[in-house]
Amino acid sequence: MSESWNRRHVLSLCDFEPWEYDAVLQTANSFREVLSRRTKKVPTLQGQVVTNLFFEPSTRTRSSFELAAKRLSADILNFAAGSSSLTKGETILDTAKTYLAMGTDMMVIRHQEAGVPAAIAAEMDRLNCGVGVLNAGDGQHEHPSQALLDLFTLCTTIDRSQPKLSLLKGKKIAIVGDILHSRVARSNLWSLTASGAEVHLAAPPTLLPAAFAEFVQGTPIDRQLFIHWKLDDAIRDADFVMTLRLQKERMTSHLLPSLREYHREFGITRDRLKICNPHVRVLHPGPTNRGVELSSDVMDDPNMSLVSEQVTNGVAVRMALLYLMGSSR
Amino acid sequence: MSESWNRRHVLSLCDFEPWEYDAVLQTANSFREVLSRRTKKVPTLQGQVVTNLFFEPSTRTRSSFELAAKRLSADILNFAAGSSSLTKGETILDTAKTYLAMGTDMMVIRHQEAGVPAAIAAEMDRLNCGVGVLNAGDGQHEHPSQALLDLFTLCTTIDRSQPKLSLLKGKKIAIVGDILHSRVARSNLWSLTASGAEVHLAAPPTLLPAAFAEFVQGTPIDRQLFIHWKLDDAIRDADFVMTLRLQKERMTSHLLPSLREYHREFGITRDRLKICNPHVRVLHPGPTNRGVELSSDVMDDPNMSLVSEQVTNGVAVRMALLYLMGSSR
Amino acid sequence: MSESWNRRHVLSLCDFEPWEYDAVLQTANSFREVLSRRTKKVPTLQGQVVTNLFFEPSTRTRSSFELAAKRLSADILNFAAGSSSLTKGETILDTAKTYLAMGTDMMVIRHQEAGVPAAIAAEMDRLNCGVGVLNAGDGQHEHPSQALLDLFTLCTTIDRSQPKLSLLKGKKIAIVGDILHSRVARSNLWSLTASGAEVHLAAPPTLLPAAFAEFVQGTPIDRQLFIHWKLDDAIRDADFVMTLRLQKERMTSHLLPSLREYHREFGITRDRLKICNPHVRVLHPGPTNRGVELSSDVMDDPNMSLVSEQVTNGVAVRMALLYLMGSSR
Repeated sequence: MSESWNRRHVLSLCDFEPWEYDAVLQTANSFREVLSRRTKKVPTLQGQVVTNLFFEPSTRTRSSFELAAKRLSADILNFAAGSSSLTKGETILDTAKTYLAMGTDMMVIRHQEAGVPAAIAAEMDRLNCGVGVLNAGDGQHEHPSQALLDLFTLCTTIDRSQPKLSLLKGKKIAIVGDILHSRVARSNLWSLTASGAEVHLAAPPTLLPAAFAEFVQGTPIDRQLFIHWKLDDAIRDADFVMTLRLQKERMTSHLLPSLREYHREFGITRDRLKICNPHVRVLHPGPTNRGVELSSDVMDDPNMSLVSEQVTNGVAVRMALLYLMGSSR
Repeated sequence: MSESWNRRHVLSLCDFEPWEYDAVLQTANSFREVLSRRTKKVPTLQGQVVTNLFFEPSTRTRSSFELAAKRLSADILNFAAGSSSLTKGETILDTAKTYLAMGTDMMVIRHQEAGVPAAIAAEMDRLNCGVGVLNAGDGQHEHPSQALLDLFTLCTTIDRSQPKLSLLKGKKIAIVGDILHSRVARSNLWSLTASGAEVHLAAPPTLLPAAFAEFVQGTPIDRQLFIHWKLDDAIRDADFVMTLRLQKERMTSHLLPSLREYHREFGITRDRLKICNPHVRVLHPGPTNRGVELSSDVMDDPNMSLVSEQVTNGVAVRMALLYLMGSSR
Repeated sequence: MSESWNRRHVLSLCDFEPWEYDAVLQTANSFREVLSRRTKKVPTLQGQVVTNLFFEPSTRTRSSFELAAKRLSADILNFAAGSSSLTKGETILDTAKTYLAMGTDMMVIRHQEAGVPAAIAAEMDRLNCGVGVLNAGDGQHEHPSQALLDLFTLCTTIDRSQPKLSLLKGKKIAIVGDILHSRVARSNLWSLTASGAEVHLAAPPTLLPAAFAEFVQGTPIDRQLFIHWKLDDAIRDADFVMTLRLQKERMTSHLLPSLREYHREFGITRDRLKICNPHVRVLHPGPTNRGVELSSDVMDDPNMSLVSEQVTNGVAVRMALLYLMGSSR
């Protein structure tokens, strides 16, 4: 890469440059190679401390970051809300500053409210402490490491040896499901539109952002982004179908009629995929509600599903992010 | 050992060969020696990942496996049901496959339902991924690592330098307590009968498996296995008395009258042990209800109780199992 | 130091000798230097096991001990009450003995009842096992590692290169808040009076120990210790003001009128501090209730607040304690 990484925090993909995407993709690819060895460890972050501050419970994402940090030989501190000082009246910033004072070098932060990782990053910068902050999901805002692992999965599916952003140029990618509430979709929109792919969103109107409501279905918002209320319109000839997790609590708030109806209208089955590109591949950020977003035969078919690849790539991409953030300190 | 270990999973002792028992005993004995050094670590599993999937809460067994893995220099991931994706609708197999995709090399699984570790092992084999599964307790089915540490404790009590299965031939071993619900008893029955020991079970009739009800008390089921409804009949001349943990919730289901009555009938005291072999030793898998299964004076007498030995040996035996499983990959 | 450390347990500061305080201060200072390096690790406790037995929930203190142990290259086991065997009827001593039998070298113990760490230490000595016990807070009794990190913070503020107890001789130190319920205050009283400082306690009469009630306000209990019911009397000309955490549940038991009234009477603000030594520094053990014990402008002013320093020093002091305890084995 011609430029050198100087982004200390990864909070959002809204201002990522193409060369930054490529830096992540190339670095992750070299770590992916490390992970295929029997001894899957490098000494890059030896003696440094990565703190997972998870104010919102998570097992899968926390484990992925924990493993990424361990494979870089970092020491890990895990903070989980619950049995914590938060119930004792401490503010979130004070919690972060406590872990900073203990000697944290990088923080991985998940919170149910949008903006918390950015607020903590701003405080770290104000204190001029050199600590990097990685947003591991904030409310309905962004989840950049998920979008980057999705991007890495898409690109390595096309070219395993040289993943780069431009490989997606002109590809047709459908994103299906609860766009409105999805921080994964929001981050993916930044990376996919940056790549030059043609992105088609499909969701029931109640699960689309209000800002999109004025657009006529099927009409491009810009040359790359299209909105659909029907699944088939979105996935026709698609190269990739990215499904989103449906949060069942949406139904209690009457945004959805029933899981069965959702599956009938927007569930991905082998049958529905027949109108896609014959080599279509399906993604899901997990955990999956089998038989709702995806049928089991699609999910378990290694020729169609990239779900396992996404999880494996997640560790490599998170190693790459921690490595690059660490290099800019 | 003349044969080489090729068992990738340890799910049950039902089909263990005598030489396999001996391989575990000898390997554990060499690790037991490592544990007596000041630096109690070996680099055997460096860079490999052992994942503890504990769907049923446990502190003691999880800590023992965690320490065993750390002393083999593995990286550990801990999954505990609760704040997990399970509540988000993911299936158990999908949870296991997620940890597989992250890069798990071996899984240690505990679940409240019998058969879950075997089902996950079958899926791992179907995927041809080389991952080994160790059953850390499944419902009322089996708990093989506990039975193997019990076996190691019995054998090293007889011969510390050369523990082997045949040392138990002809020994009289009593198992006392809630046989019906005990996965520990079930696994021990396989190993002890394989050793050629004479095994005497003692329990209130309500806590014996229905299959045993037809047998007249004191009559051998086969030449090695005897059932008793009274404690004294079982422990007379016994070389070892293995007590089982009493789960207090059994009483609410009216299988037991009261803790006090249970202790009077089946509790092990110094007095009751007088009819045993004068060198009798007592085991308990822990955690113990003092004054119920065991009186405190027996439990705290290092000349009688092997309870601490069992815990110490647990780490060495689990190191041996992870080592042997890893060697078969 | 002329004498060599032979204290295996750190349970209370009541019998600490001046040279022992100095040994902790000097050792912590050398570890503080290690923590300023990029690779903040030393191999001192490699292969040894430090077990955190936290019967009372804690995030901050547990993380601090965990990081201290990791930086000494120890392996860590974390026991947290809750999903534990305690609910299965096991006694606290049996839990400790289980972790001993697994191979624990040092135990860090927090419990809601005073005396539990001492009881476990006595049992370890009885078993002659060489295991050291560190009290990480027991009921309203003591919290020695907190008082030692406070002491280290006070001394290094005066002389960063040569912290020693005698630096505090003649300094005026105020301790403000819930003295009655504070294990932190209790441990600090031992170290500060040993140093030759003049200690002034300020609290509402309901939050002072009954033993102090007979003393007239402002009259010295001994030449070094004074009691006040009003804040200004205590902090006038003070070099250091140590605030204590206010536990909000005290109000429900009618020991306190309201948080607002508490803050008006005993809260530390920039304005109230004007009667102190112009170089006064403020401490708080954390987590802080902003606007109750301390106003935000004081807490966030690095020229006044030592709160972050305390957290950073906590890791160095805990490394020193584990190191010294380990050296006496």
